[in-house]
Amino acid sequence: MIKPNFRHIINGKRLATAIAQDYKTGEILMVAFIDEEAFNKTIQTRKAHYYSTSRNMIWYKGEESGHIQEIKEVLLDCDEDAIIFKVKQVGGACHTGHYSCFYKKLSDDGEVVTEYEDKVFDPEDVYEK
Amino acid sequence: MIKPNFRHIINGKRLATAIAQDYKTGEILMVAFIDEEAFNKTIQTRKAHYYSTSRNMIWYKGEESGHIQEIKEVLLDCDEDAIIFKVKQVGGACHTGHYSCFYKKLSDDGEVVTEYEDKVFDPEDVYEK
Repeated sequence: MIKPNFRHIINGKRLATAIAQDYKTGEILMVAFIDEEAFNKTIQTRKAHYYSTSRNMIWYKGEESGHIQEIKEVLLDCDEDAIIFKVKQVGGACHTGHYSCFYKKLSDDGEVVTEYEDKVFDPEDVYEK
Repeated sequence: MIKPNFRHIINGKRLATAIAQDYKTGEILMVAFIDEEAFNKTIQTRKAHYYSTSRNMIWYKGEESGHIQEIKEVLLDCDEDAIIFKVKQVGGACHTGHYSCFYKKLSDDGEVVTEYEDKVFDPEDVYEK
């Protein structure tokens, strides 16, 4: 197994950056960190796994919601400390109910944030309270 | 000025993640970290600035090479600790001479990395030795 360069040390953990991108449209869905175990599980299962720096644990994306990311293609950057997962997203990537986590747009002067994408699911239907 | 959530502490510095994406094709060009000063400079100048965790300094993308990134649109993610710069890339984003830093593709079994993109410039012509 190829080993990316997990060179970002956050909370004492060696991590790389992982971006999920819609494999058809190119829309960026989310960005997260990933450790070696999550990377290996992603390649072996063809389902995206990440490392949560707030919970300090591996995270199988969609485990609770069913909104998994099926891996279609994996790209690495020049120094191999960043990864793109081109994925088929089930449901939506964002816990807010949006298809992409990047649903906020900044005004040109940097003063105002607006939401420009509608939700694709209701989080209350998907996540336990 | 809106202030993103610079919550990743790397080398003692508070950073957010910044992704540069081609504003026309949606191709992801690079991912880096960004601090508050680099973010503010990006918004004010409409040219991408990042924070280099290896050199521990702000980095005006293209300062040496001329391969700047003109900001067309700025997106934030749900918790505002990640940013997409939709950019018009001059030359190529990667110091290797590739248009995107993500020019390496991983085989499905995770064993082989191949380069699938040609270079758009010769780094020896652009960077001082």
